[in-house]
Parts: sequence; C-alpha cells; structure tokens
Amino acid sequence: MCRWIAYRGETIALEHYVTAPAHSLIAQSIHALESTASTHGDGFGLGWYGDHPEPGLYREVRPAWSDENLRYLCRHIQSHLFFAHVRSSTGTPTNRPNCHPFACGRWLFMHNGLIGDWSRVRRRVEGLIPDALYGSRIGTTDSEAVFLAIIGAGVERDPIAATLRILAILTEMVNEEDRAEPLRFTSALANGHDFYAFRYAANVPGNSLYYRTAGKDVVIVSEPLDHDHSGWIEVPENHMVVARADRPAGLVPFDVAQAVAAE
Amino acid sequence: MCRWIAYRGETIALEHYVTAPAHSLIAQSIHALESTASTHGDGFGLGWYGDHPEPGLYREVRPAWSDENLRYLCRHIQSHLFFAHVRSSTGTPTNRPNCHPFACGRWLFMHNGLIGDWSRVRRRVEGLIPDALYGSRIGTTDSEAVFLAIIGAGVERDPIAATLRILAILTEMVNEEDRAEPLRFTSALANGHDFYAFRYAANVPGNSLYYRTAGKDVVIVSEPLDHDHSGWIEVPENHMVVARADRPAGLVPFDVAQAVAAE
Amino acid sequence: MCRWIAYRGETIALEHYVTAPAHSLIAQSIHALESTASTHGDGFGLGWYGDHPEPGLYREVRPAWSDENLRYLCRHIQSHLFFAHVRSSTGTPTNRPNCHPFACGRWLFMHNGLIGDWSRVRRRVEGLIPDALYGSRIGTTDSEAVFLAIIGAGVERDPIAATLRILAILTEMVNEEDRAEPLRFTSALANGHDFYAFRYAANVPGNSLYYRTAGKDVVIVSEPLDHDHSGWIEVPENHMVVARADRPAGLVPFDVAQAVAAE
Amino acid sequence: MCRWIAYRGETIALEHYVTAPAHSLIAQSIHALESTASTHGDGFGLGWYGDHPEPGLYREVRPAWSDENLRYLCRHIQSHLFFAHVRSSTGTPTNRPNCHPFACGRWLFMHNGLIGDWSRVRRRVEGLIPDALYGSRIGTTDSEAVFLAIIGAGVERDPIAATLRILAILTEMVNEEDRAEPLRFTSALANGHDFYAFRYAANVPGNSLYYRTAGKDVVIVSEPLDHDHSGWIEVPENHMVVARADRPAGLVPFDVAQAVAAE
Repeated sequence: MCRWIAYRGETIALEHYVTAPAHSLIAQSIHALESTASTHGDGFGLGWYGDHPEPGLYREVRPAWSDENLRYLCRHIQSHLFFAHVRSSTGTPTNRPNCHPFACGRWLFMHNGLIGDWSRVRRRVEGLIPDALYGSRIGTTDSEAVFLAIIGAGVERDPIAATLRILAILTEMVNEEDRAEPLRFTSALANGHDFYAFRYAANVPGNSLYYRTAGKDVVIVSEPLDHDHSGWIEVPENHMVVARADRPAGLVPFDVAQAVAAE
Repeated sequence: MCRWIAYRGETIALEHYVTAPAHSLIAQSIHALESTASTHGDGFGLGWYGDHPEPGLYREVRPAWSDENLRYLCRHIQSHLFFAHVRSSTGTPTNRPNCHPFACGRWLFMHNGLIGDWSRVRRRVEGLIPDALYGSRIGTTDSEAVFLAIIGAGVERDPIAATLRILAILTEMVNEEDRAEPLRFTSALANGHDFYAFRYAANVPGNSLYYRTAGKDVVIVSEPLDHDHSGWIEVPENHMVVARADRPAGLVPFDVAQAVAAE
Repeated sequence: MCRWIAYRGETIALEHYVTAPAHSLIAQSIHALESTASTHGDGFGLGWYGDHPEPGLYREVRPAWSDENLRYLCRHIQSHLFFAHVRSSTGTPTNRPNCHPFACGRWLFMHNGLIGDWSRVRRRVEGLIPDALYGSRIGTTDSEAVFLAIIGAGVERDPIAATLRILAILTEMVNEEDRAEPLRFTSALANGHDFYAFRYAANVPGNSLYYRTAGKDVVIVSEPLDHDHSGWIEVPENHMVVARADRPAGLVPFDVAQAVAAE
Repeated sequence: MCRWIAYRGETIALEHYVTAPAHSLIAQSIHALESTASTHGDGFGLGWYGDHPEPGLYREVRPAWSDENLRYLCRHIQSHLFFAHVRSSTGTPTNRPNCHPFACGRWLFMHNGLIGDWSRVRRRVEGLIPDALYGSRIGTTDSEAVFLAIIGAGVERDPIAATLRILAILTEMVNEEDRAEPLRFTSALANGHDFYAFRYAANVPGNSLYYRTAGKDVVIVSEPLDHDHSGWIEVPENHMVVARADRPAGLVPFDVAQAVAAE
C-alpha cells in the first residue's frame, strides 16, 4: 500500500507539502500512521504541471527519505497542480517505470490500492489498453495498466465516465465466478487544469483518503499531513473530489454500476 | 545492439572471460569493435550455474565499467556454465528486469538482436507466453517475451524445437503483408547442463557470433575477446552451437521453415 | 544505527543467515526489534571469503528488502566466513562507498555505532589513517575511517592491540575538555582466517551484540535472528568474541585504557 | 575528462542547451569530439538558480543518455544561470557526491580537469578546506576539495582572487621537487548573479573551453554544441570569462603567479 498527496491551487514550491510538514509525505515514507505497510521505501515519484503542456516527472527507486535530489527539486519546482507518491510494492519490482505518478500526454495518474488477484487478471486488464497506447506501457504494475485503460476509455471526452467505466469492468473481473477478490482504488487523475480524486473499493474497505480546502486551493492525501486531523475531511467511499480549473473543489458521490448502466 | 559471452567447461572464476581479457566484455562495454552501437552502457548482467539447481543472476542498470561490485563478483563466483551481457538499449527503459540474462526456473537466456517493429508485434509476441508463465514477465523487452515464449513452446521437452518454432512464428510476423521487417536473433539458452547458441536473421544480415573450443570447453561471443581473431570460428547464419552435458561443442545447421513443417 | 551479522564456520550458502531465518537480516532491514532506528533502508552490504585471498564485496544503495540480486547472491555464494550489514545512516550520504562492510587487502570490517560528534572529530580520525592507506578512503563515514586507522595501527601484527589502541585514542577524543560525547563501537573484523567482534562504548550504553556457537561454528549478530532468544548469548560491554582459525570461538574481556598503558 | 556547459542570460528552459542541440551535452555524453575520453557515462549533474537563494542540484550515477528524469527536468526547469556536467571519472567512484556540479551555500562549481597526482596531494588539498566547511565534503573528488578550498579562500569577498590563490597553491604542489605533475583546471563558478569560467593548466596543455555571446547571454562549453564551430570563441589558456550580473560577458587574462604576489 502506498501513500500520496495531490495539490491544486496557487502556484507554490512542492516543498510546502512534500518535504516540509511534520507529517510530510517524506516523513510518511518512513512511518505511515494509517497504512498497513509501515515503511514506503520501494521508490517514489513527483509529477507536476508548469509552462510546458505535458507534466514533469521525477521517479526514483531509492527511498524518498535518502534521495538528495528530492530536497532540491521540491524547493525549486513550483506548480499549481502536483502529485507526490511514496511506494510500498505489492509485488512488482522496484524500478522507475513501476513508480507513480504515471504520465501519458498531458495526463497524470497515481494510485494506492490493488486490483484483485493481479496474476490472474493482469492480461485482461492489459487487454483494456488500446493498441495505440500500448507502447506507453513501460512498466508492469496494475496501476499503470489501469491508467492506460482509463486513457483509452475516453479520458479526453469525459474523465469521470472513463474512470467509472474501467472501475465497472474491474469490479466485474474481481467478482466473476463468486471470487470476491479485493479491489482498492484510491487514485488521482489530472490534465493540468482539472483534477479528480477517487475513493472506491469492492469486497473490502477502501484505503483512506482525506482532503482540505482553502479558497480554491485543495490538498488531497492518503493520510493527513499533521498529527491532529483538524481541517481534514475524510472522503467517503464511492465519492470523488472534483477540482475543475478555476473552480473550488467539491465532493461528489458516484455509483459505478449505475454510471455504466446509464451510458 | 548488445554484446555477450557464454562459457561452458571446467569450473572457473567468471573473471577469466568477463573482466580479465584485453578485449573482455567489460572493455567491450565502452568500445565494441564490430557492433553498430559503440557504447554499451544501458545496464548489464551475469547469469551462472552453481550448486543450486536454479541459476544465479546479477543485473544492474549502471554501466558495467563503473560497477564496483562486478569486479568482486567475477573474481569470487566460479561456474562451469555462465552468461554475461552488456546492453545497448533499442528503446526499452534501462532497469534491471530489462537487463539480460533472463532466468525462468533452471533456464537462462540472453539475446542480441531485435524483433521486427516491436511496437507493432509486441502484443502478439506477449500473446505467445502461456498464462502460467505470464507472471514471470517482469520487464518489457522483446528479448524477455521471446524467452518466455520459447519456454512455453516446450523447452523442457526439446529446446531446439521450441526455439525454432518460436523463430518460425516471429519470421512470419515480420514478413506478413510484405513488410520484411528486420529480425535479428543471436542468442544463448541453457539449463545448467546443456547449452545452445543460435545465429539467425530474417530480412537483414545477422549479428556477429563467434566461438572457440578447447577440449570440452567452449566460449561463444558476440565479438572475439582479443584483437587478433585467431582461434575464433565465426558461426554462420542459420547455425547453432550445441554443447550438451559432458560432450564437446559442435556446430549444427538449422532451417527454421523446415523444422516447423516437419513437426 | 545499523544491524549486522557475521558467521565463521562450515562453508555454507549465505542465505542460511542473511535471507532465510524468520528474523533474518533482511527481515530486520524493515523491522528491527532492539534498534532505535526501526527501518534500515540506507543501503546494505555483503562481504565474504572464498578461494581468492581477498574478500568479495557486494554493496548497494537500495534497501536490502527490494534488491533482486541479493536473493540470488545469497543462494549461490558459499563461504566459511562472511559479513552482512543493513544500514541506517547517521547522516553521511547513502552511496556504495559508505555502505558496510569495508575491505582493505584481505581484511573486512563492519560497524554499528557512532564516533562522538563526527563533524568535530572527523578530520583527526582521518588523520589516524597512514598516507599509504589514505587512497583506500573512498567514502566519508566514520566507520571507514576507523577501519583504516585500525589497519594502519598494525592490524597484521596484532589485530586486537591495533583495535584497542584506536579505541583508546577515540575515547580520549570524545572525552577531551569534559565533552563526554557518545562513542559506540560494535564491530566485526576478519582476515579470512581469524575473526573478532567487539562491543565497546564510552559515555553511553553500548549497542546490543549476541553470539551463538555450535561446535566451531559461530554466528554473531546485532540482534537475535529469531523471536525467542534461546541459544543466544549477549556479549557484555568491554568484551570481544574471538574466533581464530580452526579454534572454537570464545568470549574475552578487554580494557581499553589498560591495553594501551601496557604497551 | 569531463564535458560541461554553463549558461547565463534570459531565463530559459534547460533543455535549450542540455538536451536539444544536435551536439547537446547529452549527445556529448555518448560521443565527445574533442575529449580524450570518448564516453562520459560516469554520472552527470545539473545545477541551477531560481527563486530560492540557494541553487538547485540534480545529480545521478546513471549515464545522462538513459536517465528518464533528465528529459522531464530539462523541459520544466527554467533558469537564468545554470550548469550541466557529464562525468568521465579519472578514478574516484561513481556516486552522487562525486558528480558535478557541487553546491555550497549559494555557490555552484563544476570542473573538468585533474590536480596532479591526486593520491599524493589529496590530503594537502583537503587541508586547504577550513574546518567550518569540512562537513560539506561529502565526496572524495579532487574537484570538490578544490571548490571548498576556493570557498574557504574568500570567495564571498573576491571570487577571482580566491580562485587564483588556490590555483597558485596547487601549481606549487604539482611542481615541488621538480615533479611537474599535470594540473588541468577548466571550471565554472557562480553565485546566482555573477559567473566566472577559468581555463588554466600547468605542465600540460589545458582542456578546451569555448564561449558564445548574444547580447547579455553567454554560453560556455567544453566543446561547441554544434558541428560547425562558427560563433564559438576559444577561451585561451590563462583566461577567464567573467559575466557579472546585468553586464555582458567578457574575456579577461589572468596570471596566477602575479595575482598571488600582488596581494
């Protein structure tokens, strides 16, 4: 299980949320409070938007807490929308293409969770990736495959519908033949202007997710960045945080089954 | 394009071929003579057999020439059958799962070449890997996919037939619709007792391959390990070197089309 | 604070102590029981003796628990005398030359502890390294500097005397001007035949150290390798375990002040 | 021998000089034209100034050409003053603290060259570093030691005088007892506002250095970034390029011996 943070708001240096707070993501990489894996040392990553239409990425296999570059980058890179992620592998190797966030065109994605019995469903989840995007699969994680499947399901047209459609297919996969395999999907998706964070699960309780707003600024985290939880609102299961360009963030419920039936 | 060396014979320290000769594999990693890519700094790997039924592997993303561990390992690890490989990527990322050799059960494989337009055929080559072996695909290279396809085609029953069957399928793929895409396959395959090296190509000249024998010892290389080529015999295209347990190595021609037709 | 294990005895594969036990060193790298730093993810290392007069070394900056190579190496490398170490940095960067064990000629050394206020005494500890050995200082840790100082103090002539002499000098340094800075020195030293482990401290309690014998075999560890401590004997402070070639290991008290005065 | 580039001028993305030109620094990392070492795969680094008073640093041990992060960082990081360096080690290990540029407070430094017989003079060059700065020595290269010596020689008061004073001392060291050891010093030094590049050598010809100006912009390189050299001016030996804040860059001769005598 992983830990992540996403920010959308005034342009700030990444250090404000990634390296500076008492319970910053980097501090969490050594000791997470609410996570089942107490150490997140299987690589980490940053993704951010700046002047270039496509996001920047910095991913590294070393633990975040000992990476000398990270401190410099978080101090110098400023962004109005950024992601940071520390990884605790559920089995796939620790290499850069397996670290979050993932980028494809102008989209960024990161994930905390797992997709059923990955060894059983991997091939079919990869089968959801359109041919044109398959070259972008440079790692072997479930998360990257799900991201590319969402991209292929029409993320440009309707990011929420594309995500729910893929979640519906994954839910079917983990439930077929009465398997009831665990599906945990706590993820963030953005295109540089709009930002979405989802909390969903099937057959098991979902991973934790919290957010905090101040004007148009919003921070979404796996786990609050300070020891007292004041100001942090838990995202309920089957809810998403939607923060579209220049509009305040809001909490929106979703129903995976219904969303797909309604199409 | 990559460079590799394989050895089968008396148990010796790996350094005799990997780090010591004037034109050793490590020296080749900086300057190869007959290769189109003059630097091979995109990772490297060692594979070897010892007392354990499964081979050992050491793979690293740094260039072989600056890896402090490599010198120690080549001095201390002794083997009667080992592979070493320096990589020059044709596009896939430089991470450990993409470095050669690859291991699966007691089999080792390494490759110098390329499989047509990989972005076009990748999915179908991956489709040749049986479900039971798909979890062993931890990287994204063409070479690993071809290896797992060969394993799945019956390597335990008949390693040569399994290899030729996959080569026949690949040859069809690169030739369909008059495409004539390049297929280069200069590879080594072993199970701890028996050792096979193939030189094959379709639509283009094959990559170079040489071998040298001394009694039952045999060394096979992409490129001779010394500046004078004396003692090195070039493996012709459509030929393999076969070195079965306790028997001297021999050169054997093969015919991909006929081998498959004959089944 | 670090964790380590040292073995001297029948030739065995390293996996028996490094990767296999329930509370193996690798398991300890994620969760140590008796250590103040609960995660040891700042690099690790193996050192071992084989046929070659000089030891082998494998050191890597990634956490031991995610290093694919480590499992293969521990399964294939066999030795009658080996060290393994997982590092929790006290401040120096995480790079290979700063990982333990350290090698110099036929000597191996590893350490768990700290040497006073390192920024204050570093230069003088480095000053204890003879010119001829200064080129072997390829990192910046206190541990490497102390090792090279011990080598320079006559390790070939009398390893125990050389170690105690350096400990006496360090004790003086940390106590000068009534400073009473902490000095912790729990270390292992070997030359391929003879093996020594020391537990010493000044101004603070020493780090934990345990050993277990079976015939001529001896294992020494920072922390027992299984949850029940039966069979493990704690090394008291100011004691060393001495295991000379072909002789059983024994516990020997030492007195740093007296040892130096007696010269 | 290494390759580097430094830029001072309008704020631009680093990619314009680091990754984009035909003969960019990254292309040079595989094939340098005027360098004695044709491959520069022993690590690389970026240093740049932004809003923060201290510079940013990104240093990595992998070859620049295969680092996925580098492309993203060079596209997203913008600066009015930046350094980039690809390393070809003269013997010190390949780890991040040994990669250029080096940072200390608001100063950045990088170097292409060597300081006599380093194993002989290392200790004395390290002795030039004041105690207060010795904690900043986190690597073992000659370049980092010389940088910290320059800082200690009064870089804040007068960067040119501090550099020449250290060069004079180094020149004496390499010439003592008629040794005439080679000293090559082609370096860049900056504080965020002012920028200096030096070409100096003793006992051997100096390494190449070129610059090109356009208005107040100046680019200084080990080797021109395009195959035709038009527009590039060679910096003669014993000359420096000085580019102070808001003033055009100029070529200034210097005399190491005289500069010191005049103090």
